[in-house]
Amino acid sequence: MPRSSPKKNFPVANIRHFLEPGPIVLISSKWQGQTNIMTMGWHMVMEFTPSLVGCIIAGGNHSYEMVRNSGECVINLPSAEMVDTVVGIGNCSGADVNKFAQFKLTADKASKVDAPLIRECPANFECRLYDDSMLERYNLFIFEVVKAHVSAAAEKIESLHYQGMGQFMLSGRTTDRAGLFKPSMLT
Amino acid sequence: MPRSSPKKNFPVANIRHFLEPGPIVLISSKWQGQTNIMTMGWHMVMEFTPSLVGCIIAGGNHSYEMVRNSGECVINLPSAEMVDTVVGIGNCSGADVNKFAQFKLTADKASKVDAPLIRECPANFECRLYDDSMLERYNLFIFEVVKAHVSAAAEKIESLHYQGMGQFMLSGRTTDRAGLFKPSMLT
Repeated sequence: MPRSSPKKNFPVANIRHFLEPGPIVLISSKWQGQTNIMTMGWHMVMEFTPSLVGCIIAGGNHSYEMVRNSGECVINLPSAEMVDTVVGIGNCSGADVNKFAQFKLTADKASKVDAPLIRECPANFECRLYDDSMLERYNLFIFEVVKAHVSAAAEKIESLHYQGMGQFMLSGRTTDRAGLFKPSMLT
Repeated sequence: MPRSSPKKNFPVANIRHFLEPGPIVLISSKWQGQTNIMTMGWHMVMEFTPSLVGCIIAGGNHSYEMVRNSGECVINLPSAEMVDTVVGIGNCSGADVNKFAQFKLTADKASKVDAPLIRECPANFECRLYDDSMLERYNLFIFEVVKAHVSAAAEKIESLHYQGMGQFMLSGRTTDRAGLFKPSMLT
């Protein structure tokens, strides 16, 4: 498990930097004194301001009712060295297991929601449920990111990108094409 | 520009393999005899069967009305060597430019929709608009992928993952953790 590094406040309008590339994330939640974590790959940025993220959480997940009832969660960005933890969390249920204890993760207190931050993840995005109107039809939660915590390490880690069938792509090198953009398109 | 390689039919229920890792994609459309292409990063898989993909297309884009009016598009997966094409397409408007001509791309005929496939992209997903009920509120198009074309090259290419501010992450190595999954979780 990676050591944690100190985190700083990060502008919520800029979280696309971490989420638009499509990493697998860990969703932490809390309801009636119990915490839980799930692994999630189906998410997208939907708006800069308010900072909206759409996520699919299937009804069979223990987290579904916890997130729905509490109206909150935290989206945590794991590093590639956490891959076996990410897989382990996705292959057991919070109905049977205390995932923070089982996977030796640290629940840090969030600022604006009761759901815990996962300390070992280099970025954490506190979310409030913004629109639940598509839950029945698609299990689509639309969250507003109300606070973002990002460590210096978050820029350097490899992220995990799920391809299905137990296979992950890891993030590779970056390339800067800002010089080819119209200034107004540089967000 | 990469040479094209022959494409085969690919099961639409499995397109998560290509889209869940979060690549930037090119959306091609056709309406009233005109074609267009836009660059898009805000998308997510929403369901296996029917094969649903959610996409945000902001109202200011020339493609918005074309996709809305035709009720169709093609999601095309570019390779990393197409990065300058991807950026160029995202920094001009179909109101001013014929993007297929301008960027020397080839419009191939699709099977089930009128919107063209971009031949130079190693994977093409033909889409029909499945649900437009969230268009007014969020510019959220929910598409059903009705046909997928994938070349052998698609497994080997580097994909592009947009981080904002003109910067792209390229896909890196892969790691197989299937042995840690419950069989029922291997989709």
